[in-house]
Amino acid sequence: MIRHPAFTVEPWCVRATRFDLDVLSQVESVFALSNGHIGWRANLDEGEPNGLPGSYLNGVWEQRPLPYAEAGYGYPEAGQTVINVTNGKLIRLLVNDEPFDVRYGTLHEHEMVLDLRAGLLRRTVEWTSPAGRRVRVESVRLVSLTQRAVAAICYDVQVLDGPARVVVQSELVSNEQLPEVAGDPRAASAVPDPLRPEAHGSHQLWAQLVHRTSGSGLRVGCAMDHVVEGSNVQSVAESHPDLGRVTLTAELKPGQRLRVVKFVAYGWSGVRSLPGIRAQVDAALASARQTGWDGLVAEQREALNRFWDRADVELDGDSEIQQAVRFALFHVLQAGARAEGQAIPAKGLTGPGYNGHTFWDSETFVQPVLTYTSPRATAFALRWRHSTLPLAKERAAQLGLRGAAFPWRTIHGEECSSYWPAGTAAFHVSADIADAVIRYARATGDTDFEQSVGLELLVETARLWRSLGHHDAEGRFRIDGVTGPDEYSAVADNNIYTNLMAQQNLRAAAVWGHRYPGKARDLGVDEEELAQWHDAADAMFIPYDEELGVHPQAEGFTEHKEWDFSVCTDDDYPLFLHFPYFDLYRKQVTKQADLVLAMFLRGDAFTAEEKSRNFDYYERITVRDSSLSACVQAVLAAEVGHLSLAHDYLGEAALMDLDDLEHNTRDGLHIASLAGTWIALVYGLGGLRHYHDEGPVAFSPLLPEGITRLAFNVFLRKQRLRVSVVHDGATYTLESGDPVRLLHHGTEVVVTERAPVTMPLPRTEPRPAPTQPRGRVPEHRGTGSAGAPTRR
Amino acid sequence: MIRHPAFTVEPWCVRATRFDLDVLSQVESVFALSNGHIGWRANLDEGEPNGLPGSYLNGVWEQRPLPYAEAGYGYPEAGQTVINVTNGKLIRLLVNDEPFDVRYGTLHEHEMVLDLRAGLLRRTVEWTSPAGRRVRVESVRLVSLTQRAVAAICYDVQVLDGPARVVVQSELVSNEQLPEVAGDPRAASAVPDPLRPEAHGSHQLWAQLVHRTSGSGLRVGCAMDHVVEGSNVQSVAESHPDLGRVTLTAELKPGQRLRVVKFVAYGWSGVRSLPGIRAQVDAALASARQTGWDGLVAEQREALNRFWDRADVELDGDSEIQQAVRFALFHVLQAGARAEGQAIPAKGLTGPGYNGHTFWDSETFVQPVLTYTSPRATAFALRWRHSTLPLAKERAAQLGLRGAAFPWRTIHGEECSSYWPAGTAAFHVSADIADAVIRYARATGDTDFEQSVGLELLVETARLWRSLGHHDAEGRFRIDGVTGPDEYSAVADNNIYTNLMAQQNLRAAAVWGHRYPGKARDLGVDEEELAQWHDAADAMFIPYDEELGVHPQAEGFTEHKEWDFSVCTDDDYPLFLHFPYFDLYRKQVTKQADLVLAMFLRGDAFTAEEKSRNFDYYERITVRDSSLSACVQAVLAAEVGHLSLAHDYLGEAALMDLDDLEHNTRDGLHIASLAGTWIALVYGLGGLRHYHDEGPVAFSPLLPEGITRLAFNVFLRKQRLRVSVVHDGATYTLESGDPVRLLHHGTEVVVTERAPVTMPLPRTEPRPAPTQPRGRVPEHRGTGSAGAPTRR
Repeated sequence: MIRHPAFTVEPWCVRATRFDLDVLSQVESVFALSNGHIGWRANLDEGEPNGLPGSYLNGVWEQRPLPYAEAGYGYPEAGQTVINVTNGKLIRLLVNDEPFDVRYGTLHEHEMVLDLRAGLLRRTVEWTSPAGRRVRVESVRLVSLTQRAVAAICYDVQVLDGPARVVVQSELVSNEQLPEVAGDPRAASAVPDPLRPEAHGSHQLWAQLVHRTSGSGLRVGCAMDHVVEGSNVQSVAESHPDLGRVTLTAELKPGQRLRVVKFVAYGWSGVRSLPGIRAQVDAALASARQTGWDGLVAEQREALNRFWDRADVELDGDSEIQQAVRFALFHVLQAGARAEGQAIPAKGLTGPGYNGHTFWDSETFVQPVLTYTSPRATAFALRWRHSTLPLAKERAAQLGLRGAAFPWRTIHGEECSSYWPAGTAAFHVSADIADAVIRYARATGDTDFEQSVGLELLVETARLWRSLGHHDAEGRFRIDGVTGPDEYSAVADNNIYTNLMAQQNLRAAAVWGHRYPGKARDLGVDEEELAQWHDAADAMFIPYDEELGVHPQAEGFTEHKEWDFSVCTDDDYPLFLHFPYFDLYRKQVTKQADLVLAMFLRGDAFTAEEKSRNFDYYERITVRDSSLSACVQAVLAAEVGHLSLAHDYLGEAALMDLDDLEHNTRDGLHIASLAGTWIALVYGLGGLRHYHDEGPVAFSPLLPEGITRLAFNVFLRKQRLRVSVVHDGATYTLESGDPVRLLHHGTEVVVTERAPVTMPLPRTEPRPAPTQPRGRVPEHRGTGSAGAPTRR
Repeated sequence: MIRHPAFTVEPWCVRATRFDLDVLSQVESVFALSNGHIGWRANLDEGEPNGLPGSYLNGVWEQRPLPYAEAGYGYPEAGQTVINVTNGKLIRLLVNDEPFDVRYGTLHEHEMVLDLRAGLLRRTVEWTSPAGRRVRVESVRLVSLTQRAVAAICYDVQVLDGPARVVVQSELVSNEQLPEVAGDPRAASAVPDPLRPEAHGSHQLWAQLVHRTSGSGLRVGCAMDHVVEGSNVQSVAESHPDLGRVTLTAELKPGQRLRVVKFVAYGWSGVRSLPGIRAQVDAALASARQTGWDGLVAEQREALNRFWDRADVELDGDSEIQQAVRFALFHVLQAGARAEGQAIPAKGLTGPGYNGHTFWDSETFVQPVLTYTSPRATAFALRWRHSTLPLAKERAAQLGLRGAAFPWRTIHGEECSSYWPAGTAAFHVSADIADAVIRYARATGDTDFEQSVGLELLVETARLWRSLGHHDAEGRFRIDGVTGPDEYSAVADNNIYTNLMAQQNLRAAAVWGHRYPGKARDLGVDEEELAQWHDAADAMFIPYDEELGVHPQAEGFTEHKEWDFSVCTDDDYPLFLHFPYFDLYRKQVTKQADLVLAMFLRGDAFTAEEKSRNFDYYERITVRDSSLSACVQAVLAAEVGHLSLAHDYLGEAALMDLDDLEHNTRDGLHIASLAGTWIALVYGLGGLRHYHDEGPVAFSPLLPEGITRLAFNVFLRKQRLRVSVVHDGATYTLESGDPVRLLHHGTEVVVTERAPVTMPLPRTEPRPAPTQPRGRVPEHRGTGSAGAPTRR
């Protein structure tokens, strides 16, 4: 999408210097604001034109029936889908009775800027109405990172070339009409008119609407208040079941301005009463009003200063990626920062794609970034998972298993997938949660978390694996008939990713069980069970193809026919929209990193040589029809010495949404792929690994030719370790605290407070580049993109 | 169901001597009449009470949407479902203004008899109305085997104990209200009011209704006419869009009768005009009227005499099975006899179960019986398949394959399964069709069929296999990711049944291609393609588990965890209603014979020792949740020497519907299991095999203790070979024609015209009986059931 001269490459913002109706819905996603609790797509203030209007509250969803032509035991009957809640963004403008609409009249200037340091969305428009009156509108929007129930807009209108009567209508609108849903299964399933009006009111510059959802029974309140600057401004407030409106009128002379600050507060609950919700949103509104616009802006800046101080990644040599990684980190922050008690959905709160569901993306892609930059957010996300444990245990019981089977996709915790090869068989999600628990604990040493949340998650997931697998005649522990990460395979035996992640899960549960014997006993764990977990982990079956000298993704995989890419054209991607599942499943073609992901997360289970051979083998058959693939391939490409390829994959992950590479950015951003930008940089080029509780954290930094400097921070047990890499060497700096022991390319280094250590980078022999499927060679980044002023 | 003292065991009829509301819908299926073109469930003449009203025309269906919560490429969008057409069976009776209804008043006698030799359903009722008037009703119903558009009823009412005014209303009713569909996925999906009225008319004793279906665009006509005997009978005819009615009134004195013969004709077409259809049904009606009731009854008897002369199986020692096999053959005849140009659905025309779809049952279970007893019906059924070849080729192309992929379930030829692991991956259906072609040709030598239909079916299915499989690094031809017959496994590699059936398919296509080189050239077959088929067949991979010494049903199957039957209770069957597919698929549990079926149909590919070991192995894990299993297990049990067990499975197959063993006889009879009764007897106890075109037909008869004599006929190239077996020996008799060379227990025997040959049976050593899953031991038939006067 942003392969467009209107979009500039700048280090600290994303800027659209022109208005373009063709990419409007993508722009609405890219420039979306969120604090993890409230999400506002970057719909125009005046509401129209729009691509996809969207205002979301994390955890507010409605049921939808899941229809089956042929139902089966254990199929979920009801789905959950995120709903578009009351739109508080609307500020309509009339200039001498003509509605301000960029599709009419003359648009002289239209700029939108997402300011990554300020946390603001700025918009500047100069427009002449069809009748010839020129106005300038400057609006600034924020969704507060400090007051999580609050969003605000500062709307400033100025008449430029003559007097005009202007009317500003600031609105709350519920049950907005949405565009028809397209055929793409990744898009959302709309629930028409999801909000049932319960109460409304207005007074002076204030209005409030309260609604309730029918199926999920959630009560949603939204209120607004205003501060107006301008002379002789008349105001009137009104409210209706689906509309709250404050109308401001003024006669402006040339150069005069009308400035309106709109404070919006949201609140929702499945249990609180109508008066309770009304009070809750008014309280939030009162707090925002007291802070004031300037105060909210200042708080936002401070919060972001703190964030960038922890999380910023600096990059020289590829300015597109410098911009992209900051854009990515900003959205990861927005998705996870204040999602307290709620999930981090695959699209954050930037769009309705995937029905607002949370997948394993959260634990495997987003949480690694948060763990090392904003560990508190990871703890919240895992506490949310823990809160769904009773549902996951119910699901396991329904499936005839012990422990907890976490859902493939959900909002509230129940399984919402109607496609059982994913919804039931993709058990790896439970091991991915365990992996996130282990990573968080290893990085933070948060023993309170370990005891209150972590242990139980590990125990119940370990129980799942123990009951899902079995020992065969040779004593191997097999896990049959499951679906791994690769969605172009399903229901296979001994998927190596699943088996290795389960092995780690079982081992960690046993270790933690010994670490917290009292808590473990409370969970019904005895010595026998701990021993069983150890046994199963030790006997875990990892298939290997001796003939080819590679690991099959799952047992028998490498005996399958190879996909015939010679007949594929560019139009055939993504393959799942053009070929039947049965055909994809039975052949050697992978949608996304699967074995390659295993070599990243369980790299300790493979030799360097195995990694190289496996990587090159899977490179030939991986089509990256999933946005979860490129970043993982970048990590392993770097590890096995394909640095230039790692750079290319880094670029693909980083530009997934800025370039709309999967053509579905309209439905929301790919938060996991955005997080993958950091993963590709820090795990990939930085070579971060941390496989053992006892062992030191390891770095193996290497830079591709096109990147001249990379610097990032990693939080370890509350200490900030800064890693700065140039081609000549890597410098490790510790700001404060106890010395840190780490490995640099396998060499132990101890870094002490304010005594940076610089180590040389090893010389690498370039290996012959592997090949990709026809039409799926990643775009080469080379070295020439450093100074590009606008996106290619 | 008929575990009920009201049902008697008689050799040539099925009789219900009492009326029982609890089993009404099962009775309606068991006593259903059909000629393969028209099907009438045995609903009471007076329409109510009913279990499930049903009148069907083979090939008349309506579309229904197939909903998906998550759709995928190649999923069928529309399903097809059989519809309940105009009910022509209705004859309502009023006795002194009180409707005759067995739920009111006093029922003195109620008997229904399905006369298997006459092809008639007789009903006798004596009833006293609530007001105290006693009447006797005798009705006889037939669906003509000689005039395929015609059904008729002779309805006779007599007042017994005083004068009464009787009103007889003979009706045609369209769009009858049907009971709600239950949760069982095997039941039907009702389309409400499927018939749109197009025309209606009435005159004297005649009435006619014409309707059309909305989605499938089929025009359906139904007309009736009457012959009335009785004095001073008044009549009036009327018609409405959904109702045709002839009302007859008479004052009857004690002992006087009113006798009404109702002729009903049906016609349907997707192309013929309204006048065309009206003329068509009136012509059929005229023909029936001219033949008259007595004439129709006589024709019916003659047709059945011919059938029984060819097809009857005689059995001494187990009178229940003697009755059951005749009941079975009668219904197989009814399902297939006049299905000219149409399919043979899984339920015949006895109920709406499985939406009236045809599966592989037709070729693999029903056609073997028809091939050896009514070969013309097999030719018709295969010609129907051939007529759907263009659709099967389209489907293959959609799936990226060559040749023809026949549907898993269909009425009109399009794939109607919404569950892709069955609907797409169960490719074996195409090899099953090829198998039926080969069997029919081998048995009949019908070279016209071979050239006009058979060759093309073999060629297009061989092309499917060639494109579906591939040679692996070791040169083995693999067929990965397919679903075999066992519905408790799916999408596995190298399912042995599929691979062996594909092997036979490929070989036969190559042989026939050489046999008819000109025709083959017309189909685009060249020497290269013939060679490829041979190569693929010769290289076909058949996995074997050396460790266990058994064949895995599919590659890796025997490494899977065994199903834990120790925790299963009787209520857990059928398992698919109580456990998720994923769990069934990943464990060693089979719904039905799969490898065991391969050992039957491709017995030439296994040694005797392999058969014994495999049979015993799979016996432990086969739960027979499919009605297609018991008969196949009976065949192999007999072959490997478990004769008593073969008898037990024969009993289960034979009594599937008479005893309602699967609790869904209400939705229609299991035609394949009924056919399986013959399979169990002739292939099982008779040991019929015919694996090679050149080789002689083989018999290996052996009788279990409880059966003292078995006699059956087999048609071979228009010659009738009679096989009569007692414990002392088997006698082969040829009625006419050239001498037949056959194998008796491996010994070559030549039987010439009117010179029966008797051969001794070998002594068999009983082997230790295999075990079945807990709760799934078949009911033991022993030797004591010979003289049971009523069903147990």
